[in-house]
Amino acid sequence: MMENSYVYPRNAKDVSLRELSDRLAEFAEVRGWEQYHSPRNLLLALVGEVGELSEIFQWKGEVARGLPNWSSDDKEHLKDELSDVLLYLIRLADVCGLDLGQAALTKIVKNGRKYPITEQTATSTFNA
Amino acid sequence: MMENSYVYPRNAKDVSLRELSDRLAEFAEVRGWEQYHSPRNLLLALVGEVGELSEIFQWKGEVARGLPNWSSDDKEHLKDELSDVLLYLIRLADVCGLDLGQAALTKIVKNGRKYPITEQTATSTFNA
Amino acid sequence: MMENSYVYPRNAKDVSLRELSDRLAEFAEVRGWEQYHSPRNLLLALVGEVGELSEIFQWKGEVARGLPNWSSDDKEHLKDELSDVLLYLIRLADVCGLDLGQAALTKIVKNGRKYPITEQTATSTFNA
Amino acid sequence: MMENSYVYPRNAKDVSLRELSDRLAEFAEVRGWEQYHSPRNLLLALVGEVGELSEIFQWKGEVARGLPNWSSDDKEHLKDELSDVLLYLIRLADVCGLDLGQAALTKIVKNGRKYPITEQTATSTFNA
Repeated sequence: MMENSYVYPRNAKDVSLRELSDRLAEFAEVRGWEQYHSPRNLLLALVGEVGELSEIFQWKGEVARGLPNWSSDDKEHLKDELSDVLLYLIRLADVCGLDLGQAALTKIVKNGRKYPITEQTATSTFNA
Repeated sequence: MMENSYVYPRNAKDVSLRELSDRLAEFAEVRGWEQYHSPRNLLLALVGEVGELSEIFQWKGEVARGLPNWSSDDKEHLKDELSDVLLYLIRLADVCGLDLGQAALTKIVKNGRKYPITEQTATSTFNA
Repeated sequence: MMENSYVYPRNAKDVSLRELSDRLAEFAEVRGWEQYHSPRNLLLALVGEVGELSEIFQWKGEVARGLPNWSSDDKEHLKDELSDVLLYLIRLADVCGLDLGQAALTKIVKNGRKYPITEQTATSTFNA
Repeated sequence: MMENSYVYPRNAKDVSLRELSDRLAEFAEVRGWEQYHSPRNLLLALVGEVGELSEIFQWKGEVARGLPNWSSDDKEHLKDELSDVLLYLIRLADVCGLDLGQAALTKIVKNGRKYPITEQTATSTFNA
């Protein structure tokens, strides 16, 4: 893994998609929200959160990796919106009866076949 | 956890956000793609994938939980698009230097404070 | 044109895309906002407004045409959000130097070629 | 109106929202598509098109106004996607029974009240 100036502390607990999925299912159940969690309702809620995520970036012009010069408040806000997108996505997969973690691993393998590593790309990366 | 007719097999490997994040970082690095993975590029790519996800649901009217009557091809397609959204979201958080798993856990706690379980909601759920 | 129960009063002034585009350009100019109106800034602002539009529909399940039973406040809110999407879209086309009205007419012609009227569809519509 | 290097020819016909709305209603009707044009179906189709619009911009980094150096093919593609968003937006407003043109004019007036022109912004624009 290359050196990144923006690397975050990685000693924090690793979080799994299933753990989040289970917690969200319980969260909805104990609040009587299951009735609202149809696939298209959740999809539109996801689109709403993607909108809020976009609003954070909309007037900023190009933003550098690692978000230099962002206040900690702005970073907290961004973490909240990224999370909201994630949580609705996980919930959507769950009510569709799909295993998102397995699907994601499978998709990475498919992408690897679609975009094989060529000598040229490898060279440009490692010998540059 | 309530009985669901749409529950998927849960004996599959549990997948963590960090595992996916690491695999995506390596995927980009060995292909020389790091240069394209700026926050706003990834955000727009995410919006593109949310669009593809929406296209799957756009002419269907209301869709029932568990996707009864969907063909396995349609379910595979849906898994791919859900995954694409997830993978860009994870990558976006990573290049922003944010720990998405921790952020998501924190957000669930915040949501729990914002929407406390009332006796009424609990009753309507558990005694119904 | 078929009879619709939801038809709105059509005696109001017809509004052109160019009129809106000109008013938006002037609106931005007199406020010194031109500097913020780059294509990708406006695109992300558009995505933000699409998110707000989606939020209106997110927990409603299927919604009938004409919005029966919506309060006038909810309809006003919807008009505002539809407008926000439109205004950013017009502004985006304008700063890209593209004539959105002409583009839309051209696209309708293209769509007509892509989806020709078949005897069957015409029959099912007019003789039903 | 300020001088723009990217200004497009404005001798073309002015296009109104009502004209587009009427053509789209007829387009759907003669194809027997009215049955699919529920508000949420059209909203998700709109989100799909916003996704395709975003894909055009996703790997480009910051894009200058007027799209210098874009090929005419890329501009045609962009015109098509901007139009698709517009057409679904107009159609959505129509099936909701709302007059999008009037709503947009009203929204511009509201925005003008929300963001009054200050001496400072006017000065920075006109005396710069």
